[in-house]
Order: sequence, then C-alpha cells, then structure tokens
Amino acid sequence: MSDNEPTLAQLGEFGVIDAINAGRHQPDAVALGPGDDAAVITAADGRTVVSTDMLVQDRHFRLDWSTAHDIGRKAIAQNAADVEAMGATPTAFVVAFGAPPDTAVAAAQALSDGLWDEARRCGAGIAGGDLVSAPLWVVSVTVLGDLGGRAPVRRDGAQPGDTVAVAGDLGRSGAGYALWLNGIREPTALRAQHLVPKPPYGQGRVAADAGATSMTDVSDGLLADLGHIAAASGVVIDLSREALGADHDALSGAAVATGVDAWEWVFGGGEDHALVATFPGAVPRGWRVIGRVLDGRAAVYVDGESWSGNAGWQSY
Amino acid sequence: MSDNEPTLAQLGEFGVIDAINAGRHQPDAVALGPGDDAAVITAADGRTVVSTDMLVQDRHFRLDWSTAHDIGRKAIAQNAADVEAMGATPTAFVVAFGAPPDTAVAAAQALSDGLWDEARRCGAGIAGGDLVSAPLWVVSVTVLGDLGGRAPVRRDGAQPGDTVAVAGDLGRSGAGYALWLNGIREPTALRAQHLVPKPPYGQGRVAADAGATSMTDVSDGLLADLGHIAAASGVVIDLSREALGADHDALSGAAVATGVDAWEWVFGGGEDHALVATFPGAVPRGWRVIGRVLDGRAAVYVDGESWSGNAGWQSY
Repeated sequence: MSDNEPTLAQLGEFGVIDAINAGRHQPDAVALGPGDDAAVITAADGRTVVSTDMLVQDRHFRLDWSTAHDIGRKAIAQNAADVEAMGATPTAFVVAFGAPPDTAVAAAQALSDGLWDEARRCGAGIAGGDLVSAPLWVVSVTVLGDLGGRAPVRRDGAQPGDTVAVAGDLGRSGAGYALWLNGIREPTALRAQHLVPKPPYGQGRVAADAGATSMTDVSDGLLADLGHIAAASGVVIDLSREALGADHDALSGAAVATGVDAWEWVFGGGEDHALVATFPGAVPRGWRVIGRVLDGRAAVYVDGESWSGNAGWQSY
Repeated sequence: MSDNEPTLAQLGEFGVIDAINAGRHQPDAVALGPGDDAAVITAADGRTVVSTDMLVQDRHFRLDWSTAHDIGRKAIAQNAADVEAMGATPTAFVVAFGAPPDTAVAAAQALSDGLWDEARRCGAGIAGGDLVSAPLWVVSVTVLGDLGGRAPVRRDGAQPGDTVAVAGDLGRSGAGYALWLNGIREPTALRAQHLVPKPPYGQGRVAADAGATSMTDVSDGLLADLGHIAAASGVVIDLSREALGADHDALSGAAVATGVDAWEWVFGGGEDHALVATFPGAVPRGWRVIGRVLDGRAAVYVDGESWSGNAGWQSY
C-alpha cells in the first residue's frame, strides 16, 4: 500500500465505521441500522432465521487471489445461502471484521462495498458490525432471514419416492480453485466463481412454496451435503450421473487443463452454494432433477453405487 | 496439553459440534436449534434486536490469564449487554469459533460450557455456530434479543433535565486488568471481574419500562460511552464525583497496590458492561443516580469540568 494511504489505526474505529456506513440504503426490514448498541430487524411472523460463518485469511480466502470486494461478496453469499436453504429470505447481515492496524482504510471500504453489493443482490442490508484489531483478516458474518409465514425446510424431511433436485451451479468453485492453484488463467468464469459463489437467490423460497421436504446448500460438496439430508432423514439418496452430465461438461475445459476428473468437482466440490432439495411432486422452475430418494440405510449413491472420489471439504 | 488428549483436527468439525451440543437445553425462544443450515428464533412482536462482537486472542483475552470457560462467559456477557442497552432481553446467540487444529477438544468444550453458563444467566441459549481452523483463537458472537413490544431505547433521546443513572459495576475490569498486568494476586474479585464482566441482566428492560430516554452499556469507559449519548442527543452530561464515591472506594485497594488513581478506572475503564441511561423522572430500583443532562454543546463533564485522565479503550 502507498505510504500516504490512511490506515485503520490512523482513522480509528469510529472514523472507519462512519466512512463505510456513509450513504448506505437499508431495506425496509432494517428498522434500526448501524450507530447504536444494536440493530433492529423485522420479521412479521415473529420468527427470525439466523446462521453464522467465519472466514479466515489463508484458510477461506487468499489476499493474493481475492480482492477485498470479492471477500465481502463471498462472505455474504455463503451466509445468505444458509438462509435460502431453510426456505427463507435474507433480510439483514451483521459483520465482524478483524484486520491488522496497518490495513488501508480503502481495503475496509472495498470489503464493505462487496458486502453491500452482494447483500443488495439478495434484497438485504448490512445492519451492524464490529471492527477489531487482529494479526490477519477474519470476516465473521451472521445472517438474519424471514420465513414469511412458511415452515422452515429442514434436512430431516426427505421421504422415499421424493425427487432430488438442484438449483444453481455445481463444481465451479472446485474447478476454479484447481485453476488458481495451478496458475491456469482460463476459463476466467470458473476462476471468478471460486472467489465469489453465485447462490440461486430466491430459489429457497420457491422450493418451500413447492413443498420441498428437505433442503440444504452445497457448501462442503454435493455428496457430503446430501449425506446430511440422508442421515437426518434416514433415507438413501441415489444420484444419476446422466442427469448431472451438463454440470460435468461445463467443467471439461478445466478438467483437461488440470488433469482432474470433472466428476470430482461435481460430486466433491464445495463452496458453490447451490441449493439441493427433495420434492414429493413436480420440481419447480429453476430446479433440475438429479436423483431420487429411496428406502434403506442412510447413504448417498451415484447410479446405485458408492462414489470413491473426493469426500468434500474438511474444516480441519 | 497431554499427547493423549483428542484435538479438534482428530475429532473433526462435526464430531466436535456434536460433542459440544450434547445435552443442551434450549429456551422456548429457540424454535429450531443447532443441526440444520440455520436456526429459528422467535420474537412475538416481529422485531429482533441484533448485535455482534469479535474477540481476538491477545487483543481481547489472553490464554494465560483466562480459562476457555472465562472466554466463553465474557463473549456472551459483552454481547448480551448490547441487547440489554436497547431495553431488550437476549434470546439466543450464535457463535463462530476459530482455533488451531491442535487445540484440545476439551478446550472447545470448556469454551462452550462458558458460553452456555453465561447464556443461561440471561435466559438465552446458544442456537448455532461455526467452527473453523485459524492460527489463533477468535470468538465471534452475535446476539439476538426480544423487545417484548417496547420501543428500542436509543442513544439519541437524552433531554436536558433528565437524570443520568447507572446499573452494575464501574471500573472493576480496569482495576482488575492493572492487577493482572502487575502480577498482583489480590483482590481476587477484581481480577475475576476483568476476565468475566457482570452485566446487570434484566435492568435494560427495567430501564425501558421506567421510560429511559437513552441508554448504552459501558464497554469503552464511562466518559467515552456517555460521550456517544451526548453526541447523539446533542446534550451535555454532567457527572457527580460525589455520587460515584462508592465506585471509587471499591477500587481503593487495587489503587494503592498499583499506584493508579482509582478515578481513572471509574471514568475511563471499559469492559464492565454496566448499563448507563437517562431518565426523565424517578430512577427505577437497581439504578443509582450519577449525574444529570444539561443543555449545551455535546460534551461529558465531571462536576462541570472536563476530565483530563484516561480517554478509554481504543480499538486500534
């Protein structure tokens, strides 16, 4: 950074907070925004959906790959997907940001712009936060959401006979990660999707309205996350490789370039934050069928067999 | 740690989460607790109060001073105080915890026990969280609260003629910090209050019911935090040294032992998370009068004069 660029330490906590909150437009659900001890968020039916994720530098993002704006967008997107996966709509986020005192104010501003950019995409606002000194970047986001009177769509309601369907992309983040790791510059779209996922905003509510019996978002990998539904519901989920052919083919360029089997990314790649759900009847628009729910001891299969590849993201 | 003690990396994210969530009893406000993509918290009046704080190792706590249980209690207490300061009641917390992979599972369990211990003291539960790898301990807490139909008590409503009052302790954390820093073992109560603050749970609601015109919690120091009320309300706050005599005298042992003026801790010491509010009429039970609100350019005075001591906690 330039020696003339003001740092967080120079501007001070309250100066930085004032700067990054200036000119922001809160959605109606934020009855009271930043500037007091706490914010006030509305949800007319008296229930608030809440989830939290922490992103740590060099573990969940790299400052030499992602811009601060990218990091802000990613932090919001992955939290928003958790609320979507309950059949709810994100209304507000609070964000705690730890960074070294010599961090440029401009970097905090870019992070905040990214947070707001992505929050706007899902109709929500940044209602509050915390700004602290830390030896590395840590971004901890909590999302609040509104069920709009619907029942939450949990992981434990899948029934034999249901159809398994997905909304959003699979494997892109995993493929993009392999491109970054190997220094391969194309396809740029996959590289971008590793840095900033694209959850299918609005499809959580659509799935709930269509009677989804279970739902989750693909954060750890398709098989791993469907494994949670299979375990919680006590069912077998059987995926069709043929139904996932388009996802596989979209990754073929990256597969050739890196020498990886694209199925690894389709089945094991996390962080795309697609939504995957089970439906007792017709699948709504925006969703594609990828398998079915069967009776049996909880497990996830591909064409009736165990998948022997990458098991998905491990937190440690 | 013993070589035989299991670590977070050995047990894995989901194993640790299962272990720390086992046997917990959620309050009624937690309609859906941990184990799905998100939790569901109720607030009958359709409004949820939310605030977030991040605690970073060696900045907000030291592992050679605090037990993991202490850190859990402190993280909850300081967030709960923000909800109390709005005139609301804490209902649920979500907690993101970053720690090195070789951290003992027992330490995460003790942190969780501390989180739950303090949450129970304010009638709330731990409704969800995140567990990630980080090079040092980071605990990021978000609190949700219920206004119970009351209007939020903001910082901008103080009026000339109001009485300034406080509920809870002042200066204890600051005095305790000085004892720790100087390796002085007595008084142990002050040392303990530096590690685990004691917000006056329930008094936020009491103040709101009594018509408090403004309120905040003392996190950065009495003068600093009242400065926010003075600025937001456009008033002068004049404190009485005589009215604060008991707070001063409670710190006299530590003052003698460390050679510090006890008024520094009363006026400048943060992290006790007392509540300070302004009232147009009688002050409710549990509150003590410490000053008054006057007309004039926003400022905080002690007996009509500027205080020249410690200005309070700086985030950078």
